[in-house]
Amino acid sequence: MAKQKKQKIHRPRAETPKGFRDYFGADVTQRNEMLAKIAEVYHRYGFDPLESSAVETVEALGKFLPDVERPNEGVFAWLEEDKDWLALRYDLTAPLARVYAQHRNDLPTPYRRYAMGPVWRNEKPGPGRFRQFYQCDADTVGAASVAADAEICAMLADTLEAVGIARGDYVIRVNNRKVLDEIIRGLMVDSEKTRALPRNFSDALNTRGSDWKFVEPEDILRTIDKFDKVGAEGVIELLTEGRKDQSGAFIEGVGLSTQDAARVVQFMESRGQDNTETLSNLRELMGPSVLAVHEEHGVHHTGLEGLDELETIATLLEAQGYGPDRIVIDPSVVRGLGYYTGPVFEAELTFEIKDDKGRVRQFGSVAGGGRYDDLVKRFTGQSVPGTGVSIGVDRLLAALRAKGRIDSTSQGPVVVTVMDRDRMGDYQAMVAELRNAGIRAEVYLGNPKNFGNQLKYADKRNSPVAVIEGADEKARGVVQIKDLALGARLAADMTTNEEWKSQPAQMEIARADLVAEVKKMIARANAADRE
Amino acid sequence: MAKQKKQKIHRPRAETPKGFRDYFGADVTQRNEMLAKIAEVYHRYGFDPLESSAVETVEALGKFLPDVERPNEGVFAWLEEDKDWLALRYDLTAPLARVYAQHRNDLPTPYRRYAMGPVWRNEKPGPGRFRQFYQCDADTVGAASVAADAEICAMLADTLEAVGIARGDYVIRVNNRKVLDEIIRGLMVDSEKTRALPRNFSDALNTRGSDWKFVEPEDILRTIDKFDKVGAEGVIELLTEGRKDQSGAFIEGVGLSTQDAARVVQFMESRGQDNTETLSNLRELMGPSVLAVHEEHGVHHTGLEGLDELETIATLLEAQGYGPDRIVIDPSVVRGLGYYTGPVFEAELTFEIKDDKGRVRQFGSVAGGGRYDDLVKRFTGQSVPGTGVSIGVDRLLAALRAKGRIDSTSQGPVVVTVMDRDRMGDYQAMVAELRNAGIRAEVYLGNPKNFGNQLKYADKRNSPVAVIEGADEKARGVVQIKDLALGARLAADMTTNEEWKSQPAQMEIARADLVAEVKKMIARANAADRE
Repeated sequence: MAKQKKQKIHRPRAETPKGFRDYFGADVTQRNEMLAKIAEVYHRYGFDPLESSAVETVEALGKFLPDVERPNEGVFAWLEEDKDWLALRYDLTAPLARVYAQHRNDLPTPYRRYAMGPVWRNEKPGPGRFRQFYQCDADTVGAASVAADAEICAMLADTLEAVGIARGDYVIRVNNRKVLDEIIRGLMVDSEKTRALPRNFSDALNTRGSDWKFVEPEDILRTIDKFDKVGAEGVIELLTEGRKDQSGAFIEGVGLSTQDAARVVQFMESRGQDNTETLSNLRELMGPSVLAVHEEHGVHHTGLEGLDELETIATLLEAQGYGPDRIVIDPSVVRGLGYYTGPVFEAELTFEIKDDKGRVRQFGSVAGGGRYDDLVKRFTGQSVPGTGVSIGVDRLLAALRAKGRIDSTSQGPVVVTVMDRDRMGDYQAMVAELRNAGIRAEVYLGNPKNFGNQLKYADKRNSPVAVIEGADEKARGVVQIKDLALGARLAADMTTNEEWKSQPAQMEIARADLVAEVKKMIARANAADRE
Repeated sequence: MAKQKKQKIHRPRAETPKGFRDYFGADVTQRNEMLAKIAEVYHRYGFDPLESSAVETVEALGKFLPDVERPNEGVFAWLEEDKDWLALRYDLTAPLARVYAQHRNDLPTPYRRYAMGPVWRNEKPGPGRFRQFYQCDADTVGAASVAADAEICAMLADTLEAVGIARGDYVIRVNNRKVLDEIIRGLMVDSEKTRALPRNFSDALNTRGSDWKFVEPEDILRTIDKFDKVGAEGVIELLTEGRKDQSGAFIEGVGLSTQDAARVVQFMESRGQDNTETLSNLRELMGPSVLAVHEEHGVHHTGLEGLDELETIATLLEAQGYGPDRIVIDPSVVRGLGYYTGPVFEAELTFEIKDDKGRVRQFGSVAGGGRYDDLVKRFTGQSVPGTGVSIGVDRLLAALRAKGRIDSTSQGPVVVTVMDRDRMGDYQAMVAELRNAGIRAEVYLGNPKNFGNQLKYADKRNSPVAVIEGADEKARGVVQIKDLALGARLAADMTTNEEWKSQPAQMEIARADLVAEVKKMIARANAADRE
C-alpha cells in the first residue's frame, strides 16, 4: 500500500529555494530607478560601468573558502567537468580584482569602474536575510593617492543626495586603518604577558619567550567594530576578560590588559568638535610611547602616515565644498573586513526610525568601503592600489521608503473592460489609441462573462480608470469612463453593469473624446493622491 | 627538484570560466538603454516587472534534465546540503511558471509580466556563443483568448520600433501549432507503412499492426524548422530518405513518403499575397482527406480551430492598425520548442547585412514566442493558458549596431590634469564645479610625474577636453583647455607641457570661465562628431 502511494504523480514544489525570493512590480522598478540615479552620479565622476560574469572560478574568488575540496562554504560552487570548481560571485570586489588582472593592458590606469548586480552567499538564511541580493559598488584601481579615497567619499555624498537623502540626514565618517593598526601595535609597550600580535610584525615575535599569549589584531578589530552596539564599557569588557550578553551567555574576552583596552577605547572616542581637533587628539595618542616600540623594532611608522592621509582627505574635501556636516573624520569607524589597508569610510543615515519592537533608533549604515592594496597582487604578484565603496542597495531602498521618498503604490494601467466578447477588436483599438497617447492601458483578457470579476481585476491592478462600452454605448457613439480611485471601495460588491453605472464617479463621454477625457480623469486622480 | 618547483607560490589564473565574459563601458550602457526602452513599451501595455530568483530547485526547472542524479546536463547545478539539487535558471519561462504557481492567489488573473536578466546554459561554448546571456521576456498567464497572442505581437512590433528598428525593416510572422499538428496527423492517410505518430493520438496506435514505422511529430517539427536554411527541396530530402550536407556528411531522413513530405512543404509554402489568401490556402490544405482521419478516430479537430484563431489574430491586429506590412500570417514559422500549443510567432529583421564571410544575407530572427498551455500544470495539476515572447537581447543589440542606431563610441569625461601635485585641492575644486554643472569630469589620479602619461590616459578615456593649470597659469588666474578630439593624433608623441601648449586646439581662458568654456568646447566636439 505505502509503496503504491508513492507512485502517484509527483508534482514539483512551487517554491524558491530557501533564502531566495522574487521581486514584483514596484519593488523592481523602484530599485532600478534608484540604481539609475546612482549610475548617473558615478558616470558624472568619470566611472565606467562593468558587468562581470556572475560565475567565477573558485580559485579566482579565492577568499572565504576554508575547504578547497568541498568549497560550498560561503559560496555556491560546483565542479565543472570533474576539473575546475566554479562558483557564483559573493561580492563585486573579488571579480573586479580578477577583471583588472585579466584586462590590465587594455584598461586605463587608474581604472574607475562601477558595478551593480546580484551577488550570492551560501549562508544560513534568516528573516530579512537572503542568499541573493544586490550590491552597487564603485572602485578606483591603480591610484595610490588618497585623492582617490576623498573622491569616493565626495561621490558617496552626492549619490545619497541624488537618490533622495537630504543633506543633514546622513554623514560619511572616515578613519584610517594605518592609525588603528599603529594603536594596536602600541599595545605591546604596556602589557607584560599579553601582547597584540602586530600585522607584518613577525620579527618581533622571535625576540619574545614562548610563554606569551599573543592576541590577533583581527580579534581586536572584530571586537571594536561592535562599539556602536555595546558602547565603550562593553568594548572594554570584550577586549579584556569577557562579557555577559543580553541573553546571559558569556562571551570570552580577547585578553588585553585593562590599560590596553582603555587605550583602544580612548582612540575610538577621540573624535573632537571638528576635524582639526580630532587630528590633534590622534597625534597625541600616537605619542612617544607608541613611536618607541617602532623605533625599537625598526618598523615603518605607518600611523603618522595614516594621520597625514586623513588630513589630506579632509583638506581635499573642504576644497570641493564637502564640510564636516557631510564628511567627517571619526576614529570609531572600523569596517570589519581584513583586507582594508588605509582609509576606511562608512555612510550613516542619522534620522530616526522605529525598529521592529517600536523603539526609536538611528537608521544607521547604508554604505561603506575603503582602501585595499593587495587584491590584484594575488593574480599578478604586483601590488596594485585600490579603493572603493559598496552601497547596501536594499538598506538604502528601505531608508528611502522610511523617509517617504518612494511612492510605494504604483499606478496600474487603464483597463478597457469587455462587454461584448465579439467586439474585442473595438476594445483593442481603444487601448491602442490610449497607448499611442502615452497612457498605460490594457484590455481585460480574462473570461469576460462575469463583469464583477473585471472590476475586481481592475481594482487588483490599481487602475486609475476603467472604460466600458456595451452594445448600447456603441450604438450611441459613447463610452463610460469610471474613476476607480473614487469607486474602489464600492466596486468589490457589484456584479452587474447596471449597479456600476449608478456610481457617481462614472461619466459618459463621446467615443471620439476617449483619450482626452481619460487623460483628464488620470490627472484628477493624481491630484487627489497628492492631497 | 621537480617536486620543489611545484611548491612555488601558486597564483590563480585571472580568467573568466570558459564560455563566460565581462561587459565593459558602452556595452553595458547600450544594453541597459535598449532594455529601458523595451520596458517602457511593456509597461505601457500593462505588463508588470518580475525579477525572480536566479537560483531555482532543479525539480522546479524540470525540463532539459535527462539525469536527475547528476543534473549538470544543460544547467549549472549543485547539491544543497546533500538534499536538494539547485540550479541557475536556463530561461525566464520556467521560473515564471514556478512564480505563478507559487503566488497565484496574490497575482491578478490574467497576469501580464515582463522579465529581463541573465540566464545560464551549461553548454559547450563556441565563438559568439556564451554560457551566460540576457533574455527579455513578456508573457500573459491566465488568458485563454488569442487576443492575448495578438497583443503580444502588437507589443513586439511597437517594441522593435521603440528601440530603433524602422517600420519596413522588420516583419512579425505568425503561425499556429494546431494547424501544423493537424497537417502532421493528416499524413496518416496517405502513407502505407510509415505513419506519423500524432500527439495525443495513442488510441490510433492500437488499431495498427506492429510492423509499422511510426514517425515522431517532434522529428518532423525539428526538420521543417530548417526550411529557411535548406529550402523546400532540402526539407523534402530530410523528411524522406535523408540528405548530404555541405560537408558531405549524410543526415538520415525522417522516413516519410515523398508524397507526405511534399504535403508538409506545400503547407509551409502556402503563404499567399495577403492574410485572406493565406487563410484560404490553409483551409484548402486542411481539406476532406485530413478531416477524414479525425472523424475515423473521433479526435477533436484542432486544425480548423487553429485556423479560426489565426483569423481572429489577423482581425484584431487590423483593428489596431497593425497591417501585414508589420505582422503577417506565415505557415512556414515553426519555433522548435516542444511546449508550444497554439499560435507561434517570430520577429524577423528584413534588412541585409554581410556575414563573417562577406556574403549578403537578411539579418533574420531577433525574437520569438507563442502559446504554451501546460507549464503551470506541472506544479498545480490545473492547466493554465500562457503566451509570451522572448527577445534575443544580444541579437537585437547587434542589429541596432549594424543599422548605426547605436553610437559605438561613448564620450569620456573631461580630464583635469595634475601639474603640481601639491595643488590637488585646486584640481578637485575644478572637477567639482564641472560636475555640478552636469559635465562628466575627473581629475587625473595616477602618478602625475610624467605629463605625457596624463595625456595618454585622457586619450584612452576618449576625453573631449583636458584642463591644464600650472603654477604660471595659477598665478595669472587662467587655465589652458585643450580640444582632445582635434589633438588626439598628435598627443601620443608629446611628453612635455611645452610641446603640448604649442598645439593649435588649445586655448587659454580665465579660470572663472572654466565651466562655460568647457561646455562650448564639448558642444563643438559633438557638432564635429555629427558631421
